[in-house]
Amino acid sequence: MTAVDLNSDMGEGFGPWQMGDDEAMLSIVSSANIACGWHAGDPLIMHRTAEIAKAKGVSIGAHPGFGDLWGFGRRVIRGDSMSDLEKQMAYQIGAMQALAVMAGHKVTHVKTHGALGNMCNDDLDMAMAVGRAIKAVDPSLVYVVMPGLVTEQAAETLGLPMAREVFADRTYDDSGNLTSRKKEGAVIHDAALAAERVLRMVEDQEVITITGKKLKVQIDTICVHGDNPAAVAMARTVRQTLEAAGVTIRPFRSA
Amino acid sequence: MTAVDLNSDMGEGFGPWQMGDDEAMLSIVSSANIACGWHAGDPLIMHRTAEIAKAKGVSIGAHPGFGDLWGFGRRVIRGDSMSDLEKQMAYQIGAMQALAVMAGHKVTHVKTHGALGNMCNDDLDMAMAVGRAIKAVDPSLVYVVMPGLVTEQAAETLGLPMAREVFADRTYDDSGNLTSRKKEGAVIHDAALAAERVLRMVEDQEVITITGKKLKVQIDTICVHGDNPAAVAMARTVRQTLEAAGVTIRPFRSA
Amino acid sequence: MTAVDLNSDMGEGFGPWQMGDDEAMLSIVSSANIACGWHAGDPLIMHRTAEIAKAKGVSIGAHPGFGDLWGFGRRVIRGDSMSDLEKQMAYQIGAMQALAVMAGHKVTHVKTHGALGNMCNDDLDMAMAVGRAIKAVDPSLVYVVMPGLVTEQAAETLGLPMAREVFADRTYDDSGNLTSRKKEGAVIHDAALAAERVLRMVEDQEVITITGKKLKVQIDTICVHGDNPAAVAMARTVRQTLEAAGVTIRPFRSA
Amino acid sequence: MTAVDLNSDMGEGFGPWQMGDDEAMLSIVSSANIACGWHAGDPLIMHRTAEIAKAKGVSIGAHPGFGDLWGFGRRVIRGDSMSDLEKQMAYQIGAMQALAVMAGHKVTHVKTHGALGNMCNDDLDMAMAVGRAIKAVDPSLVYVVMPGLVTEQAAETLGLPMAREVFADRTYDDSGNLTSRKKEGAVIHDAALAAERVLRMVEDQEVITITGKKLKVQIDTICVHGDNPAAVAMARTVRQTLEAAGVTIRPFRSA
Repeated sequence: MTAVDLNSDMGEGFGPWQMGDDEAMLSIVSSANIACGWHAGDPLIMHRTAEIAKAKGVSIGAHPGFGDLWGFGRRVIRGDSMSDLEKQMAYQIGAMQALAVMAGHKVTHVKTHGALGNMCNDDLDMAMAVGRAIKAVDPSLVYVVMPGLVTEQAAETLGLPMAREVFADRTYDDSGNLTSRKKEGAVIHDAALAAERVLRMVEDQEVITITGKKLKVQIDTICVHGDNPAAVAMARTVRQTLEAAGVTIRPFRSA
Repeated sequence: MTAVDLNSDMGEGFGPWQMGDDEAMLSIVSSANIACGWHAGDPLIMHRTAEIAKAKGVSIGAHPGFGDLWGFGRRVIRGDSMSDLEKQMAYQIGAMQALAVMAGHKVTHVKTHGALGNMCNDDLDMAMAVGRAIKAVDPSLVYVVMPGLVTEQAAETLGLPMAREVFADRTYDDSGNLTSRKKEGAVIHDAALAAERVLRMVEDQEVITITGKKLKVQIDTICVHGDNPAAVAMARTVRQTLEAAGVTIRPFRSA
Repeated sequence: MTAVDLNSDMGEGFGPWQMGDDEAMLSIVSSANIACGWHAGDPLIMHRTAEIAKAKGVSIGAHPGFGDLWGFGRRVIRGDSMSDLEKQMAYQIGAMQALAVMAGHKVTHVKTHGALGNMCNDDLDMAMAVGRAIKAVDPSLVYVVMPGLVTEQAAETLGLPMAREVFADRTYDDSGNLTSRKKEGAVIHDAALAAERVLRMVEDQEVITITGKKLKVQIDTICVHGDNPAAVAMARTVRQTLEAAGVTIRPFRSA
Repeated sequence: MTAVDLNSDMGEGFGPWQMGDDEAMLSIVSSANIACGWHAGDPLIMHRTAEIAKAKGVSIGAHPGFGDLWGFGRRVIRGDSMSDLEKQMAYQIGAMQALAVMAGHKVTHVKTHGALGNMCNDDLDMAMAVGRAIKAVDPSLVYVVMPGLVTEQAAETLGLPMAREVFADRTYDDSGNLTSRKKEGAVIHDAALAAERVLRMVEDQEVITITGKKLKVQIDTICVHGDNPAAVAMARTVRQTLEAAGVTIRPFRSA
């Protein structure tokens, strides 16, 4: 194993408001997940992010979320049918595709955001609904999933190309899911520690859980964050550590 | 001249709220302009409207407007650059395209809504911005314009396919633009009168202005409305009158 | 017992969209719960509804809900702290108070809407947060609660005036909560049956559950609906039946 | 003349997004204009800003704007009747009042935001509509106006208490209105220069226009900004310069 993708959420401002240092992150990652205007992002930010990504050779994906700007897509929303959820996903993916084309780029993957993303990893019906939306809009789009969870199962069932993702700054429980943020030790704050851990996961294609259990998985992409300067620094350390160990950073799918 | 298109705005509900009788209108018109969620419409309505249109052989278009649900896109909004406007259009067109694909249909035209539409007919810069957005997203999309006005000029300049539109229930001033709604006689309420007038316009390819002046134009499509039962009845009368006179009703562009 | 209040949700349009027949309902009920712009309603509708209510001698209340126009406040939203929820309630109550004052009327009660209302009846923390918001904004406002449930407990704990509510068209389980809409028999569709049932509840101050159990409660107000013609007809039947039996319909609190 | 008020717009974040350094500004100004959730702000931010203002002895006002979060209330929106505008203002003022009360504070003034504010200074009808809304909700609220312009005229006509405002970082044309931002010299970037100019205006109760003309006015409050570190520094310099010259900084109206 000598190559892996680094991905980060981007374009999470709205109107007059900014979030994160996208320019810095677009020099670190190989894939950008761009918010589609429902939990964050707007047409201007979507276009500009796609444009910079194109210039830097970074692949882009649609990053759909719940329609909850105020809650930034982090609040759990229940009540939509799976059929409704499909349409919400298609809307956001389509909007992103058009702005990517306008920016001379191309959407190659889809990754769900926030509460929606968490719910999909716990609920096969939701994971399938997102997958069906992707397939209906463009079956060549890569579905970003968590290895061992129902999102991976959904992508397999639907025959969608997928990218299996692990998180640089999060620990895992024995189910292969992220440790709840409510528990101590859920988030890794030390950049060097996170980078070493990522390198081990990539080299061994294993997730090591919080109890020390090793889960054999395929790892295609590493999620890093850019919300604050410490996060950007950690992302940079992860990249440097991987490259120093001979791992190539490249998109799981080029446009 | 033996064929013309009939178009109507559709899908103008939002969430729990409905507007107009889309089912009835989809049995009358040959093209549907579907609201894209900014002034009206939502992913569910967009999908359902596209699905019914497909079943009835009705062509569909994106119907983008200002981001003003409360004002239904009827309020004038000034302050966006032309570059910003392009991205707003691309977003809405892309969202509509994805939902059309999901519904087994295809977007073949773009028609601007409400205040945005009116402003485009008075402002070449805005008409060009909308045109550039269409061209960037998909240059085969038909730009619905008003003959003799700057929207037609924009489509020509950009080399976009266009459909020249007249309104069944509105009168025209000598500039070829609609008579202001603030003036008496701006709106035609009599269905038979409207239908006869449309037939004459289609047969002669002329717009007759409120002063009796005749403007030579090309007419590709007739706009009818479905907001209320009287409007639906007028649309039906227009169709019947045209057909009785041997005019075929068919989309200006099939999917 | 010779008097009771009839209440209904009102003002549930938004911008160009209407819902229900508020004019008809304002001639039937004695209290109106007016949507505050978060799940439905807008300043114009809030003002107009307050104005008509004033003219007809109908008391008004704020009817706050989740900030979810698209979902009409019917979707469950989780993730806000109780402190956050308090502020959301205060915002909506304050907005309604100002528009009531402008219309020459006065807000005298608060009733939560949709998913928020259901959640409050199951969750004391939420019921208390709503109650604290009411108390902070104006401790003389009446908190509309369900007798026997945690909303009643919250109002008691906080020392707030309360109005205990039963529903004309819903059945009850043995806990005193509404039978889940997912179960058969949850909703009563027959107007005469609903009216007789309401009369019995009011006269006996008892809720009869779906298993036949009788729960002693205090009943201050009856909720009726106006979303569709059948609902309006049922509301009218309920009023006529109560009046025919000598029950006076009057607000639980006058402005 | 030995006292004047310093005011600044505050609470202009939204959900996850922040804007400006409100904590710093609340130690500099004597009055805070708090966004009401339509162009910026949300219930949580409104409450927190009111709470800190209370602790620091800063007076608070409602800062209503157009319902245009994406455009931050800076886009011109036309199409609402004056009657509609009144209700929009009442809604925002009422929401702010309730959150102020919850925070143990009290709204004592109203200042319009952005494009709405600019339009009111050019359009007596709009200035009157805002004034009527203030008067209807609470006639003791102070209307912040620009001396010599139609807002001042509206406040006078309606008999509303008013605070006449000048801007620390803007130049004036001979009409007494702000020099258009499109013209060179519209904005003053030098803190010392702005502070000296403000001191002169306060001591002489005169606005000096860009052509050197002196307009006799009454000045009750100085607007400073806090959007960026340079603005905060200028605000601090303005305060220090005024205080060094013996001018007391205090609210034009205490809660």
